[in-house]
Amino acid sequence: MPRVITLTTDFGTRDPYVGAMKGVILTIAPQSNIVDITHQVAPQDIQQGAFLFAAAARYFPADAIHVVVVDPGVGTARRPIALRVGETVFVAPDNGVLSFAVQAFAAAQPHSTVRAIHLNRPEYWLPQTSMTFHGRDVFAPCAAHLARGIAFESLGSPIDDWLRLEPPAPTRQKDGSLLAHVRHIDAFGNIVIDVTGDSLQGADRSRTTISIAGHAVHGVRDAYGQVAPGEVLALVGSSGWLEIAVRNGNAAQKWGVRTGDEVVIVP
Amino acid sequence: MPRVITLTTDFGTRDPYVGAMKGVILTIAPQSNIVDITHQVAPQDIQQGAFLFAAAARYFPADAIHVVVVDPGVGTARRPIALRVGETVFVAPDNGVLSFAVQAFAAAQPHSTVRAIHLNRPEYWLPQTSMTFHGRDVFAPCAAHLARGIAFESLGSPIDDWLRLEPPAPTRQKDGSLLAHVRHIDAFGNIVIDVTGDSLQGADRSRTTISIAGHAVHGVRDAYGQVAPGEVLALVGSSGWLEIAVRNGNAAQKWGVRTGDEVVIVP
Amino acid sequence: MPRVITLTTDFGTRDPYVGAMKGVILTIAPQSNIVDITHQVAPQDIQQGAFLFAAAARYFPADAIHVVVVDPGVGTARRPIALRVGETVFVAPDNGVLSFAVQAFAAAQPHSTVRAIHLNRPEYWLPQTSMTFHGRDVFAPCAAHLARGIAFESLGSPIDDWLRLEPPAPTRQKDGSLLAHVRHIDAFGNIVIDVTGDSLQGADRSRTTISIAGHAVHGVRDAYGQVAPGEVLALVGSSGWLEIAVRNGNAAQKWGVRTGDEVVIVP
Repeated sequence: MPRVITLTTDFGTRDPYVGAMKGVILTIAPQSNIVDITHQVAPQDIQQGAFLFAAAARYFPADAIHVVVVDPGVGTARRPIALRVGETVFVAPDNGVLSFAVQAFAAAQPHSTVRAIHLNRPEYWLPQTSMTFHGRDVFAPCAAHLARGIAFESLGSPIDDWLRLEPPAPTRQKDGSLLAHVRHIDAFGNIVIDVTGDSLQGADRSRTTISIAGHAVHGVRDAYGQVAPGEVLALVGSSGWLEIAVRNGNAAQKWGVRTGDEVVIVP
Repeated sequence: MPRVITLTTDFGTRDPYVGAMKGVILTIAPQSNIVDITHQVAPQDIQQGAFLFAAAARYFPADAIHVVVVDPGVGTARRPIALRVGETVFVAPDNGVLSFAVQAFAAAQPHSTVRAIHLNRPEYWLPQTSMTFHGRDVFAPCAAHLARGIAFESLGSPIDDWLRLEPPAPTRQKDGSLLAHVRHIDAFGNIVIDVTGDSLQGADRSRTTISIAGHAVHGVRDAYGQVAPGEVLALVGSSGWLEIAVRNGNAAQKWGVRTGDEVVIVP
Repeated sequence: MPRVITLTTDFGTRDPYVGAMKGVILTIAPQSNIVDITHQVAPQDIQQGAFLFAAAARYFPADAIHVVVVDPGVGTARRPIALRVGETVFVAPDNGVLSFAVQAFAAAQPHSTVRAIHLNRPEYWLPQTSMTFHGRDVFAPCAAHLARGIAFESLGSPIDDWLRLEPPAPTRQKDGSLLAHVRHIDAFGNIVIDVTGDSLQGADRSRTTISIAGHAVHGVRDAYGQVAPGEVLALVGSSGWLEIAVRNGNAAQKWGVRTGDEVVIVP
């Protein structure tokens, strides 16, 4: 069975960088099945890369190898690492970009431990490595050797101090409201807020009020179709986050909302 | 032989949505060969999705499974459906987005009938389904089960009232001219008009006049190279539609033309 | 083992053109493994296509089949060709778009000769060929027949006058400085200059001065991390070219630099 290797980067799709990584992988592991998650992470935006990757990673086969390269520290002392949870392996720079996915995988497999290694065995890299493109020279070949069946432990030395990022979390204010933020705006203009649907579970959702960009949205719905076309609604989106959307429209454009903007939620 | 599953959506390639669909497919049907047609349909533009998909679909292997998700009605009463013509299966929301491709497949196989089912067997969906992302939760898993060999009929109940869209059609005017419209502008700036080359067959093409955006183009050519670089020409494009182009240039930019603009053709 | 077929075009990813090419390939050679290098070459920019393709091609398996379609002369007398160096085959219009890659492959395999054919055997094309889309009608089917095992020589007649492009080369000025140009600006805003790191080998790199857009950069570094975030630096990039970058920033935006701009280097 071909082994799936996913790629998530901030390289874009115009330059030769993603192609070079795929060429390296297929030279070492011709049977691997390379799947793009995205190459449009904002340049060097580790938080966004971690967020987008985590949202897709959980849907892949358990034995997938995930390569995530958002790497502003390439060529510095930051380590190349690999993490393993159950059968799933993650390959990335040690800058936190794997945090949200690995935390979710670990939470879903409570009997597994997260094993981590420092990728410090150059025999599994390209023979010549640059100081500016470890995606091609280190991460792609290490992933390909894993796909060929090389043992995880062979690729480097065990570590346990890999960098975890804290996900942005809303803060509870004195009046009982939540101060949250816009985490992401998707291609439809849906406004994704850093509050999970689960965190609203106690509340009567029909009475929740969400204030954003000088507007208030009342009630949390289940589907776009519950309001008329062109109307704003709040709902829990398909990845589990609270979202503001316009049915058949673009909410972020309508209200001029950007990633990072404040949101106040009265549950 | 790996079964080809094509994807056409309006999800873009930055968000995790396409990756999630691919992960779902490969978890259920690891041997399938997923091919992107496009993910850049304009958000919720069913007509454009139907048009772009139809232009590519006919070139794929006859046993391909085509998944098309342009789905402004997700979470409403609109049905998820699958259609079958000969060996080819199409999976999509019941909003007409399959119309042009399926009409073309049916016309090319006059002895085939179009069979249709309502995808109403949740055992072939993801265990938990959202009301906002049936691409991941319903369409991708149904396509993957088909790729695994599950019979078409097993996935739902037969229907015959699936939604057909009418393709835009030029109208004959009193003076014998055709009133047509710009159907699409491609990445080269070629202006694609909703008139087929076949419909001009009776006419002496060298005498045809096409009026658009205050300009007139005389004669229909066979190739870009028949005019000098930078010059405007009309020709029948590679998908069979009448097109206005600039040799080695961008016709839509040159004349400020947009999708939907009127075109008058004197054959 | 599935045969790798890479695609490099200026078709973009919104239109049905790339999908049609993939469908044609998979219909003829279902086992082939199609990999996108890029479809975002600037429309009809042969120099850019040749540059981007060459940077990625060398990382692919030696028996890959590379299809490059940047084809402003489609439908004119320009020939469709295939070149072979060692085990690697290249399929493209005869307009120079293969030049840089094939020159590099030939240099890396000094005992190989470059064999060339004119793709003039219509039995290996689609049954109906347009005069505007040879990517779909000629190049894709020829590549697919090669992947199926058809001999290179069967696809056309030997030629030796295929078009070579000269790469842009810096000129030595009277004062000993090099007059060079910006070759490419990548998605990070890194400014790629048409001077190789190798050509600087004699010089003391710490004393090199690079003048561009009214600014001067002193010294050539090894890695982004050798300057503070936000600072400009020069280094030899991962593809071997001299580059100007901003650590964790966008150099081209900072200084308003564009492809083609002049650069003066005092080694």
